[in-house]
Amino acid sequence: MNATTTENQIAKVITSAELLEHWQGHRRLTRRVIDAFPEKELFEYSIGGMRPFAAMVQELLAIGVPGLREITGGKTEALNEHLDVKSKAELLELWDTASEDINTYWTQIPEQQFHDRIVTFGQYEGTVISSILYFIDNEIHHRGEGYVYLRSLGVEPPPFWAR
Amino acid sequence: MNATTTENQIAKVITSAELLEHWQGHRRLTRRVIDAFPEKELFEYSIGGMRPFAAMVQELLAIGVPGLREITGGKTEALNEHLDVKSKAELLELWDTASEDINTYWTQIPEQQFHDRIVTFGQYEGTVISSILYFIDNEIHHRGEGYVYLRSLGVEPPPFWAR
Repeated sequence: MNATTTENQIAKVITSAELLEHWQGHRRLTRRVIDAFPEKELFEYSIGGMRPFAAMVQELLAIGVPGLREITGGKTEALNEHLDVKSKAELLELWDTASEDINTYWTQIPEQQFHDRIVTFGQYEGTVISSILYFIDNEIHHRGEGYVYLRSLGVEPPPFWAR
Repeated sequence: MNATTTENQIAKVITSAELLEHWQGHRRLTRRVIDAFPEKELFEYSIGGMRPFAAMVQELLAIGVPGLREITGGKTEALNEHLDVKSKAELLELWDTASEDINTYWTQIPEQQFHDRIVTFGQYEGTVISSILYFIDNEIHHRGEGYVYLRSLGVEPPPFWAR
């Protein structure tokens, strides 16, 4: 290993593999939050006119894999948030499949591509990295909303640090 | 510019400067959420036995700058979440000062240091990058909780994409 290679490796703020693991850690926590909801309340409970948590999760499903598919395939995708999911088991199954698909598509993004400019879902302009961070942040944001729903229902949510 | 330099630059997933701007964008949104609360409810309103939003913000203030000070100075800091803030104006002033201090401390973290192992607040083991991502994610999480408080109070929160 020469000096330049060493410098390449230590001067990375975060590697692609680390960012994927960071996202998957969040996805494991989000899965626990979905699972913590009682069946009925997952689909019906809301506060202040907001959507039930199951609807928020369907938004997350509409963004994660389709977004990565756009980044890797280049074709514009529709933002389809209405998956007509009817049970917690079905939602968890879709969640798990999406987590595996994210691993698959991730391997198709070389590190050189993270600063490429893209437009996701036909309207959101940014770079690959800004888009992926948006996907992750949006998941954390809605999951935080889900924590309040759970507390309001008297259900203890999983600890935030559990990944 | 030779080929190696070019490769160094394009193969970064995210640069240190971009990550700082990403965090400051979130901080600008969190500031808008603080400001959206009515004075009294900022300090008193809660759902499901959770803390009022002002207490969550004081946790964020206890983590951001003290955490970066630890990363850059190496001295263990206490996690002091009880700042005894009494008004929205005071909380916003502390927030703005912290945002400036984060810019200052950030310049003291060379990119080579992001994978150094550290223990923050005497107990949280990780790397510089995992700790900083935790600080940011924790802010997004609690702000998401604040969105539900606002909606429940009949107040329209700022859009999530506004940074």
